[in-house]
Amino acid sequence: MYEVAIIGASGYTGGELLRMLLNHPDVEVTDITSRQYDGTPAHKIHPHIRDSGLVFTNKSPSDLDVDVAFTATPHGASMKIVPELLDAGMKVVDLSGDYRYRDTAVYEKWYGMEHTDKENKGVFGLPELYRDEIKKAKLVANPGCFPTGAILSSYPLVKNNLVDRIIIDSKTGVSGAGVNPSSTTHYPNIADNVNPYKISSHRHMSEIQQELHGFEDVKVSFTPHLVPVIRGIQTTSHSLLIKDITPEELREIYEKEYGGEYFIKLMDEGEIPHLSSVRGSNFVHIGGFEIDETGRVVMLSVIDNLVKGASGQAIQNMNILLGLDESTGLKHFGLHP
Amino acid sequence: MYEVAIIGASGYTGGELLRMLLNHPDVEVTDITSRQYDGTPAHKIHPHIRDSGLVFTNKSPSDLDVDVAFTATPHGASMKIVPELLDAGMKVVDLSGDYRYRDTAVYEKWYGMEHTDKENKGVFGLPELYRDEIKKAKLVANPGCFPTGAILSSYPLVKNNLVDRIIIDSKTGVSGAGVNPSSTTHYPNIADNVNPYKISSHRHMSEIQQELHGFEDVKVSFTPHLVPVIRGIQTTSHSLLIKDITPEELREIYEKEYGGEYFIKLMDEGEIPHLSSVRGSNFVHIGGFEIDETGRVVMLSVIDNLVKGASGQAIQNMNILLGLDESTGLKHFGLHP
Amino acid sequence: MYEVAIIGASGYTGGELLRMLLNHPDVEVTDITSRQYDGTPAHKIHPHIRDSGLVFTNKSPSDLDVDVAFTATPHGASMKIVPELLDAGMKVVDLSGDYRYRDTAVYEKWYGMEHTDKENKGVFGLPELYRDEIKKAKLVANPGCFPTGAILSSYPLVKNNLVDRIIIDSKTGVSGAGVNPSSTTHYPNIADNVNPYKISSHRHMSEIQQELHGFEDVKVSFTPHLVPVIRGIQTTSHSLLIKDITPEELREIYEKEYGGEYFIKLMDEGEIPHLSSVRGSNFVHIGGFEIDETGRVVMLSVIDNLVKGASGQAIQNMNILLGLDESTGLKHFGLHP
Amino acid sequence: MYEVAIIGASGYTGGELLRMLLNHPDVEVTDITSRQYDGTPAHKIHPHIRDSGLVFTNKSPSDLDVDVAFTATPHGASMKIVPELLDAGMKVVDLSGDYRYRDTAVYEKWYGMEHTDKENKGVFGLPELYRDEIKKAKLVANPGCFPTGAILSSYPLVKNNLVDRIIIDSKTGVSGAGVNPSSTTHYPNIADNVNPYKISSHRHMSEIQQELHGFEDVKVSFTPHLVPVIRGIQTTSHSLLIKDITPEELREIYEKEYGGEYFIKLMDEGEIPHLSSVRGSNFVHIGGFEIDETGRVVMLSVIDNLVKGASGQAIQNMNILLGLDESTGLKHFGLHP
Repeated sequence: MYEVAIIGASGYTGGELLRMLLNHPDVEVTDITSRQYDGTPAHKIHPHIRDSGLVFTNKSPSDLDVDVAFTATPHGASMKIVPELLDAGMKVVDLSGDYRYRDTAVYEKWYGMEHTDKENKGVFGLPELYRDEIKKAKLVANPGCFPTGAILSSYPLVKNNLVDRIIIDSKTGVSGAGVNPSSTTHYPNIADNVNPYKISSHRHMSEIQQELHGFEDVKVSFTPHLVPVIRGIQTTSHSLLIKDITPEELREIYEKEYGGEYFIKLMDEGEIPHLSSVRGSNFVHIGGFEIDETGRVVMLSVIDNLVKGASGQAIQNMNILLGLDESTGLKHFGLHP
Repeated sequence: MYEVAIIGASGYTGGELLRMLLNHPDVEVTDITSRQYDGTPAHKIHPHIRDSGLVFTNKSPSDLDVDVAFTATPHGASMKIVPELLDAGMKVVDLSGDYRYRDTAVYEKWYGMEHTDKENKGVFGLPELYRDEIKKAKLVANPGCFPTGAILSSYPLVKNNLVDRIIIDSKTGVSGAGVNPSSTTHYPNIADNVNPYKISSHRHMSEIQQELHGFEDVKVSFTPHLVPVIRGIQTTSHSLLIKDITPEELREIYEKEYGGEYFIKLMDEGEIPHLSSVRGSNFVHIGGFEIDETGRVVMLSVIDNLVKGASGQAIQNMNILLGLDESTGLKHFGLHP
Repeated sequence: MYEVAIIGASGYTGGELLRMLLNHPDVEVTDITSRQYDGTPAHKIHPHIRDSGLVFTNKSPSDLDVDVAFTATPHGASMKIVPELLDAGMKVVDLSGDYRYRDTAVYEKWYGMEHTDKENKGVFGLPELYRDEIKKAKLVANPGCFPTGAILSSYPLVKNNLVDRIIIDSKTGVSGAGVNPSSTTHYPNIADNVNPYKISSHRHMSEIQQELHGFEDVKVSFTPHLVPVIRGIQTTSHSLLIKDITPEELREIYEKEYGGEYFIKLMDEGEIPHLSSVRGSNFVHIGGFEIDETGRVVMLSVIDNLVKGASGQAIQNMNILLGLDESTGLKHFGLHP
Repeated sequence: MYEVAIIGASGYTGGELLRMLLNHPDVEVTDITSRQYDGTPAHKIHPHIRDSGLVFTNKSPSDLDVDVAFTATPHGASMKIVPELLDAGMKVVDLSGDYRYRDTAVYEKWYGMEHTDKENKGVFGLPELYRDEIKKAKLVANPGCFPTGAILSSYPLVKNNLVDRIIIDSKTGVSGAGVNPSSTTHYPNIADNVNPYKISSHRHMSEIQQELHGFEDVKVSFTPHLVPVIRGIQTTSHSLLIKDITPEELREIYEKEYGGEYFIKLMDEGEIPHLSSVRGSNFVHIGGFEIDETGRVVMLSVIDNLVKGASGQAIQNMNILLGLDESTGLKHFGLHP
């Protein structure tokens, strides 16, 4: 059994890591930390996690001794903790934005703070693109929720130089805003409503743009919307073709790219991906494959923002780091209906 | 008091016409017709409309004698009924798609049926664009729900030759699908979900395109999504600029275009339009006015699909036809929260 | 035109008073006050109320000079303000719990604070029970939201000595928790969930019990539940019969009691009251009238908690105080669907 | 590996059986049958179940050869199929109401049809009450969804002769109505609404009453409500005490009764059970333990109606029938948030 710790385990991503790791056959969660809830049993914060025996502690990174540490800490906090963990010989999967950027200047621009750990470099933890690098990594930077769905549904388009502009219109569930209440997440403001936000300047934009690097002529735009959904991100990408291609050829390109991927499912013709099909699971469903009379490609993807968009993908990365089968502990299907 | 009739009054648009007309100071609803519910009191079908004294009848158009008839009948049914009403000297507001097209060939392509009344021409009932024509009309073709929000939020862009491509990504409430249940509207399929549909070929596309006629170089695309909302359409339009313009200038253009419009409210800077602000009301809230680094303009609009997107706008048209103040009976604000 | 002021106008009940009063034909809102938002235009807080010209001020009660003042202030705050308003000769409709109790000791027990204005007595503002007293009042204590639906649906049972125990199980929308966000109202905690709370000790219990005074042998219990609904309270009351009675006789008793009431609608046989039928309206729908094999009567009621449960009833009370027709400005039906 | 078949696998309970059995370590699903979908791959009906290789067939019971057959067939259909399965030597878990009643006359009264298989008797499949009987059974009658939550939360009260009347007020998610759309499950009729139904005569009443047999003086009433929830039943039971008892003693009684049960979790003091804590899981959370001043006990329970209320409990029963650990394949926690 490998031992793992979750640092900053009181939020939604902490709860999801627990939910899935407690049924993982090859790892044991030995530590969950939280400054705020030091001494509190897990179920007081995560009411579904009963009788785990786990209690939040305020252990410092240097007091941990595990095979893999998950840092489910806020942006800015991770870069204070990660160096210590790495120095102590642990492998780290960081769920914040701190190590996602090749160029820390981009991070500093979009996150509005100085990057204080320019030494340690993370591998961008999207296994479908960077599996080989992750295998050899010590630090994996788990991708953002929007970027995961957006990159996977657009990557074959740019890799094959099919388009020169991608407009990503995403609809996200409210759990993406985290566990802390605010006016934004107040039920009467979300229910029966659709709330666009940061319509031309969301920071995940820069992460998506980075991953389409080397395809410099592709302009990428992004607008997110909060919808009355608990979990899930539905992404519709509208891309402008620069090559003649048929829907059938488009589908073949995706099948070739993703055919062997356990967690990516391509929809049949006429089949629309549903959030409920991936709810609670690590799967990504990709559909669309349509081209309208103006030369616009429409691609669709759905993920669970807390699973493939966060904790599930983090466990997928952990599996790779530990040399386990990538799908271990992550095989469960979505909760439909 | 003017007298009005609602033909095909058992659906949601019929219910909305009743809800608003029963509190309209200058008109009396004398007839509500429904083949299926002949003899049934109104409240058995519209449980909120109590003690109106109204009972559905199966009267034929020629048995009616009112000032204005609303045809809340399905596509294809209206063109069978409207000629008779017009011949009998009544004015008509038709809520179907039958008379919205200048070129009936476009109708026939998108609605998949022959147009059997090529004689009578409707005025496109978007008062903010066609007020003068409506004043003189006998037949008003009330616009579709998606087109209402999409056209109003994009019209100033094309009128001022600012963009050459508009991608409209709309999120609609489920009442747009009507009163009859189907797998699509089954609660477990809608709740906690986002369902794109007809992603490259929705018929409202053609209606939007028509209204941007004369701006032939503008390519217009449209993708609708069903979201877990009862009423309301939130539209995000992504348009590609062909002129240098600042967000401030953009706002001024909209203010100039819509400054005097009672039902159009332009959001302040930083203010996002909410569905709840227009829920149950005839107002349109328009916001956005942002331009990202790729030259994409983001505009946002919200309407209640059953009010400004259907029955409210129909009453607005009726008011114009009757020479009444356009906002009579329609002044109530949205139901926020 | 009568002049009215809303004190503490930034919450949901303030917004609802504005929404309805701005379309009231006989009154003008001259003042809206809020300490927190002094100087802010109304639409910044109530985004649906556009172009009203109203701006929040921090006027003190003694600076007001209106015919009726609404105090939409928190429990404990009202009793500091109301005496001043009354002394200045204004009539007052108070939406807090401060003046609802005949015996201030009961208030002090349930609200956990001393009552500092034992001089001024409010009339309990349930017009269907206390219309005559309200006509002559200077201070009306607007009832709580749960008590309004619970009392109206049970009152005929106790008035006619039919039952000796009433168990009220209510399901409320989240707007009842007010405009301020908290963990309780965080979307992911409410959506797809049912949250009972204060299951044996909610303070509205005492208000319901008071109104069934004189029927001392009737034991009344109450348990509220938060459901994923924005507006509305659905109440199911389970009462134990002490007399032989048929469902038909039961219905007749209710018809006799409420037959002339404008805002109370009794459902037909087999008709279930729906929240959507009263959404945004001042109507109360009452149904049920069933008796099971154990001698339990089941009665059902629905109200909009912000309208008949708060601001609409306050306007109804204002109409009575001003000698206007009780339904003025309140005739609109609910927003179904 | 044991082999199992799902007969009538196209509904929600069929989908749930598949979702959980495909990750069960000791069984293999060899057959899924459906008359309607003969020849259709599983994912066309259950879009979350991808790449299972399973295809619906129209096999008749006698063509099956498995260790355990699940009959997820409608009431009335099961009793036609089950005898054949039993005759062929298979064990059966039936998810319909057909074999739940000791006295088939009660079944015939409440289900309105003749019981055509009076020979085979099912064991009532509530393992927490009938574990020993299930071990030896050939036919297990899986309990109804409402009865599961209602019985488990009230059983200790009647077993210990504490109460003489129980009023059960349940709130259920819409998936309980099944996969077929109807006006009842039409999104605009459910969202933002609460719909009581069969308020004094739901058939599950009789099933609950049976399980409290031997406690003949206890009167049991039941009223269900549809709430805007996909999955889950929240039950509040209001019971009238006939003995002096403290909340602490009440809690001890429950702890004694359920202390060793894997799937029953008793809430801490002040902790309210949440639907989200059991969403998608086989756990039952029980809380409440409060007694009000009128001598009413309030008990609360939550289950996932499709899991502990149907397919999860069926697998729990299968585990017992096969001599496996009762929690095999069912250890996953709920999906909170």
